[in-house]
Amino acid sequence: MINVAILGFGTVGSGVAEVLTTNGALIDQRVGDKIRLKYIVDIRDFPDSPYRDLFEKDFSVVEADPEVDVVVETIGGCKIALEFTTRALKAGKSVVTSNKELVATHGYELLQLAKEHGCNYLFEASVGGGIPVLRPMSNCLASNQIEEVTGILNGTTNYILTRMIQAGLSFDQALKEAQANGYAEQDPTADVDGHDACRKTCILAALAFGQQIYPEQVPTQGIRNVTLEDVAYADSCGYKIKLLGRCMQTQEGKVCAFTAPHLVEGKNPLAGVEDVFNAIAIHGNAVGDVMFYGPGAGKLPTASAVVADIIDLAKDPNRDRRNAWGPGAADLVVSPDGLTSRWYVRAQMSMERARAAFQDLQPLARSGAPVGEVAFLTGAMTEPELRQRLQDVKTGSVLRVLA
Amino acid sequence: MINVAILGFGTVGSGVAEVLTTNGALIDQRVGDKIRLKYIVDIRDFPDSPYRDLFEKDFSVVEADPEVDVVVETIGGCKIALEFTTRALKAGKSVVTSNKELVATHGYELLQLAKEHGCNYLFEASVGGGIPVLRPMSNCLASNQIEEVTGILNGTTNYILTRMIQAGLSFDQALKEAQANGYAEQDPTADVDGHDACRKTCILAALAFGQQIYPEQVPTQGIRNVTLEDVAYADSCGYKIKLLGRCMQTQEGKVCAFTAPHLVEGKNPLAGVEDVFNAIAIHGNAVGDVMFYGPGAGKLPTASAVVADIIDLAKDPNRDRRNAWGPGAADLVVSPDGLTSRWYVRAQMSMERARAAFQDLQPLARSGAPVGEVAFLTGAMTEPELRQRLQDVKTGSVLRVLA
Repeated sequence: MINVAILGFGTVGSGVAEVLTTNGALIDQRVGDKIRLKYIVDIRDFPDSPYRDLFEKDFSVVEADPEVDVVVETIGGCKIALEFTTRALKAGKSVVTSNKELVATHGYELLQLAKEHGCNYLFEASVGGGIPVLRPMSNCLASNQIEEVTGILNGTTNYILTRMIQAGLSFDQALKEAQANGYAEQDPTADVDGHDACRKTCILAALAFGQQIYPEQVPTQGIRNVTLEDVAYADSCGYKIKLLGRCMQTQEGKVCAFTAPHLVEGKNPLAGVEDVFNAIAIHGNAVGDVMFYGPGAGKLPTASAVVADIIDLAKDPNRDRRNAWGPGAADLVVSPDGLTSRWYVRAQMSMERARAAFQDLQPLARSGAPVGEVAFLTGAMTEPELRQRLQDVKTGSVLRVLA
Repeated sequence: MINVAILGFGTVGSGVAEVLTTNGALIDQRVGDKIRLKYIVDIRDFPDSPYRDLFEKDFSVVEADPEVDVVVETIGGCKIALEFTTRALKAGKSVVTSNKELVATHGYELLQLAKEHGCNYLFEASVGGGIPVLRPMSNCLASNQIEEVTGILNGTTNYILTRMIQAGLSFDQALKEAQANGYAEQDPTADVDGHDACRKTCILAALAFGQQIYPEQVPTQGIRNVTLEDVAYADSCGYKIKLLGRCMQTQEGKVCAFTAPHLVEGKNPLAGVEDVFNAIAIHGNAVGDVMFYGPGAGKLPTASAVVADIIDLAKDPNRDRRNAWGPGAADLVVSPDGLTSRWYVRAQMSMERARAAFQDLQPLARSGAPVGEVAFLTGAMTEPELRQRLQDVKTGSVLRVLA
């Protein structure tokens, strides 16, 4: 018998209880043992819940119960979640989580703590929701040197961009619609300003390259400034605008990681990822390009990944999963300033002046463009070189083009 | 030290040696032990190979060497490969393979044999080449009841269909081009008639539903009869023609599995899978739809998956991977005759007669269609019902539409 305690009965936590119940017989058969949900820790009351007998307000009860093998942390954030995770690991209980903020910020220390106490800290659900991606990258691509990871990592922003592209809604209109449909929070900052995608980029980078990458080391730009004009220009040349989290290893063994909206060519499989779906493309030196696609959020998809981690633990409770990484370092992460790419520019200038500044450019057109507005794709160059050529120019949008 | 022997130094076998060499330092670090390639068994001579000192013509030497932990079978087919795999497993050596024919035909008995002898039989590379799909399905989706698997499983046929769609080549022209580019064998039967996709469908079905499914139980149709006319009609209504391997669980607990060309709607992510790429879409009752995409064949991609299996074994040599399934049964697999779907029909008949036979139809048009040719999409019905309505009609093509 494997006993599980869920901490936090919100969307994901209640989804975990539901999956453990609905698929319980199947799961027990696959594990060859019974998985029992023993506690749900939440300070709120749920008198009508079918799980009402399992609720417990005091985490100390779970912490002190030697029967509890696995703690599911679906509280979120870095306060109580950090405290309870630390205490659970110190008590020798493995912890499974969907909390990307905690993993991105305290992953190294929590993985070390798990190792010291002979238990595991697993977080498949923290990136890509229900999409299997972290374990496949660590295990199925273990024969590869991972060279680059590129992901559509946030469903809210991908929904907003999809609606702008397909329905011609403005950013504000699309955000309102996303909020009305429950795809965006009332305070949408973490999503639309790219912080959520940034955290997931940190986790992917840490697993791909073996060292902790902190969110504050990753330059992050959201989608607030993407306009319908940009969407129209991108469309005119066969591109879609997507918010990407990217990380890659440099030739010097450093890591370049950043989050920003990009122009993605129509034939790239990432361009076809619509609505709230996510996708993560990984380039390995043996396999080439692979991509993992699916629902990046949502109650049951996220619970699917959490419960898969529970099953993994239940099958071999004492096996060291070795999904650890080394400590971070201030000089590990380098700025994307050194990364050359083509660029999309929308600006107030004449095409003559643009051509003088960028010999090699591809002019773009849209119907209804006001006099004085130009837009074009440049040749490959770094961002500092681009900014220098645009000195004294009033730019509307400057976006990187994914190679 | 983990000692490996490769059986068969063809495309995949030599790729395995190359990946073990190129990424050796990284792999040893990930494993925490040294993986050594000790033998390459092949009846041919390779006097100029950098591995020339490792060649061995007699498998008995490998079989009798207690140092050999892992045998890589990249011979292919069901003769020598079956004999050597059986002998290796009986000697307690785990076997890793990319041989879909052997797994689809003898998977159950070989998995049983591995279990009896305390070793493992792993075959991630047998489906989807370098794409991580079997282990993610078994592990990361273990919390789900898998309801349906749909895959573009053969790179050769996908290349041919892509060239027909994009360049307007006929099937024969596209096949010749594929052969010239090394994407198709001189005898292309296994690919173009769907046998290769059928074997992979069997393996996916066995893992998804837990029982051996034999190739002869899976109705299989290739792409030889797909014409440019069909491609044009499909394009006119926003569909692509793709060869799909499909399997699903029926409400009665049976398995419906088949391989056939389908019309796939443009917005389905499978429609965007082009050239020699493969993709496998899985529907689970918790996660919903996920898709795995990447190179479905090729020397290094396939070797990537083989070596990942070796690494998995090297990390925990004695762990039971539990990727077993139960025995097959004659009454386990049901015909797709019971499966309703929309259909694409191209036939010699009048549109009036078509409308009389199918009240609910969507007529299709193409430029240059000869008098008397009609094409249309039907409403949802089973194939027997469709055939009955088409009695006495001279049909050119009848293809299922993927829902």
